[in-house]
Amino acid sequence: MPTPDAPVTGPADTGRSTRTGRPAGGPLRQAGLREHHLGLVMRQVAAARRPPSRADIAAATGLTRATVSALVDELITGRLLAEVAPPPRTGAGRPATGLVLAADGPAGLGLEINVDYLAACVVDLAGTVRHRTVLRADQRPDQPRQVLARLADLAGTALAAPQVAGLTLAGAAVAVPGLVARDGLVRLAPNLGWHDVDVPGALAQQPTLADVAVVVDNEANLAALGELHARAGELTDFVYVSGEIGIGAGIIIDGHLFRGARGWSGELGHMAVRPDGPACRCGAAGCLEQYAGQEAILRAAGVARAGLPAAAALRRLTRRAGSADVAARSALDSAATALGVVLAGVVNLLDVQTVVLGGIYAPLADWMVPHVEAEITRRVLTAAWSPVAVRASVLGAEAAATGAAGSVVRAVRDHPAPWLVRP
Amino acid sequence: MPTPDAPVTGPADTGRSTRTGRPAGGPLRQAGLREHHLGLVMRQVAAARRPPSRADIAAATGLTRATVSALVDELITGRLLAEVAPPPRTGAGRPATGLVLAADGPAGLGLEINVDYLAACVVDLAGTVRHRTVLRADQRPDQPRQVLARLADLAGTALAAPQVAGLTLAGAAVAVPGLVARDGLVRLAPNLGWHDVDVPGALAQQPTLADVAVVVDNEANLAALGELHARAGELTDFVYVSGEIGIGAGIIIDGHLFRGARGWSGELGHMAVRPDGPACRCGAAGCLEQYAGQEAILRAAGVARAGLPAAAALRRLTRRAGSADVAARSALDSAATALGVVLAGVVNLLDVQTVVLGGIYAPLADWMVPHVEAEITRRVLTAAWSPVAVRASVLGAEAAATGAAGSVVRAVRDHPAPWLVRP
Repeated sequence: MPTPDAPVTGPADTGRSTRTGRPAGGPLRQAGLREHHLGLVMRQVAAARRPPSRADIAAATGLTRATVSALVDELITGRLLAEVAPPPRTGAGRPATGLVLAADGPAGLGLEINVDYLAACVVDLAGTVRHRTVLRADQRPDQPRQVLARLADLAGTALAAPQVAGLTLAGAAVAVPGLVARDGLVRLAPNLGWHDVDVPGALAQQPTLADVAVVVDNEANLAALGELHARAGELTDFVYVSGEIGIGAGIIIDGHLFRGARGWSGELGHMAVRPDGPACRCGAAGCLEQYAGQEAILRAAGVARAGLPAAAALRRLTRRAGSADVAARSALDSAATALGVVLAGVVNLLDVQTVVLGGIYAPLADWMVPHVEAEITRRVLTAAWSPVAVRASVLGAEAAATGAAGSVVRAVRDHPAPWLVRP
Repeated sequence: MPTPDAPVTGPADTGRSTRTGRPAGGPLRQAGLREHHLGLVMRQVAAARRPPSRADIAAATGLTRATVSALVDELITGRLLAEVAPPPRTGAGRPATGLVLAADGPAGLGLEINVDYLAACVVDLAGTVRHRTVLRADQRPDQPRQVLARLADLAGTALAAPQVAGLTLAGAAVAVPGLVARDGLVRLAPNLGWHDVDVPGALAQQPTLADVAVVVDNEANLAALGELHARAGELTDFVYVSGEIGIGAGIIIDGHLFRGARGWSGELGHMAVRPDGPACRCGAAGCLEQYAGQEAILRAAGVARAGLPAAAALRRLTRRAGSADVAARSALDSAATALGVVLAGVVNLLDVQTVVLGGIYAPLADWMVPHVEAEITRRVLTAAWSPVAVRASVLGAEAAATGAAGSVVRAVRDHPAPWLVRP
């Protein structure tokens, strides 16, 4: 898989800055009208329900047909757009050729570090997941350096997959269950036990990622952005809840990720259910993670065994819940009720219309959603006339890896100009 | 006090729509460049630390001196700006005449309906509180109609005050401790027991307010906006907490009020401290109001007596807390700890830098702030490196009435053009 021939841009909507691993001196152009128009055309194609023609784009953007044609030609030559055959003729006139995002354009690599797994995912420019690979193992016994070396190996495996062959890599985004500073430094990942880990710096030393632009972000934020785009405008205000060993939230307001004043928003797992509840790894007590985190659920359901991988325990939990096992159902009821108490507070505070349950909560949604809804109905002051929807994530497991890969290709779509400059 | 001669505009930064009580046919002009520039000049004068000259405004806005002079002349003629004597000569050249907002320009009326008091406040265009009046009485025994008639009487008293004589009234904003729809309908005010009360419609039937444009908004939102402007850019991201019989919050993000997807944000008082705690008037249990609301504090401190007005009980509480009375201090400790637990959750979720304690919490801040801070320090994941400040409101009691009146005059400052058109 070749490294890109053009300057690497970071995922724009993650707002996180990057290590640009590219050698210096790549051709950079003045930002200007052409760059703006190229992005406009790409976004029109990406957002369209059916492949638009050049005339459709001209009508939607207000650009002249000649301008649109010139931009489209440039984007086709640069392998960012492709033409598809026109639909069968239905009326008078010749149907116009439609445009789609080029499946062989620059692709995004999404990486996810979680407490009990690592994941890698490659998404092409058209948004298709080309390859996904997960390595299940508890990462806590190892040093960050070892975990990041393992992650780079997993990335190498993903990039070597036959389905990925021939694609240009636009960059990588890494999802971490913790607090990430603007420069990609992981300030704190309590469940991993990480403090001040320079993830971009460590990955730059790995041969598979040495020349790749790396962005690091909180996993719930990347999953929330993934959900936002996977639902393509259907939801614009929601809280995405990432249920793993830790519990995080990505807050989407008016179609944008809300990061908070300093970038530390969304620490749902450390909102208190009971102020004097069980001690939490963060140093406080009664945090939601102690009631609705993966380990608390597996333990309460009686499916946690020393030596049994969490994924196997989760499968056992799902099976038992499906056959109405009392302990499994009761564990899910309690966890969902605690989650509902905290989410009712979130809705009272923020007035979001929708809560999306992701991570391990997505496959367990059938049993959890009714209890979450019951607490919201009971506790949210406006619930009677402004109902709140509780839904399972459409991204499924490893949503953050998918969201991370998607954030890379969305950055290419939004700022395509650098990818057209071939020396 | 004359009613305005120009079309009445609603407070722009409350985002709430209004009943424009003006007779139809007032001269309205096309929104255009002149209107924009007039607002720009007014905002420059309002934001300046010392009275700016015409040249200062030209330099700051990029407009020509001739344009600025014409705009300023128009604003002076319309009594929106006034000239002040230049400062003593310090260097070469003649010091220029400075400009200030006209103290005799259109004024704002702020009204507040709370559970145990009504308040009215008149603020002039320069931002000075000209008159304030409070009527302390439990409003719960009466019908909304009676309460609103009493509020209109209080407004009449305020408008008749000698300090207000000669001012033109720009409009009124009404603060309500509840959920207010865009058309000013109070959907729910749980502690008042109000459901679907048409406040603008009822006030329009009162002679004192019949011709006044009325905006209705949540009291914590108006107080938060008041705090934002009173601190003049010092704080741009904070949660304002309004402690009364109910507890509300106004969320300011990046200098703007965050209303939530449907306008129902900030219901802090119904976030749970303990899910199985005491029953709340809202129908749920364990809500913050049951731990840190005014009635809970007065009861726990042993200063609540049948027949003793809440204001007297609060004075007694403050006195006892000042003399280290055990019951008073313990009541404040418990309330502040419960408040701190919930606010730690808010900071974990939203990553705000500052929490402002208003309402009854402001005079009790000496005893409450340390406990709120302790919970935030203990429970906020990022507190160690991103400290959160907890401060008392600068607005004092009846902050919502002051904030409401301020929102009216800010709307005039931001959109001055209609006030210049005199038939």
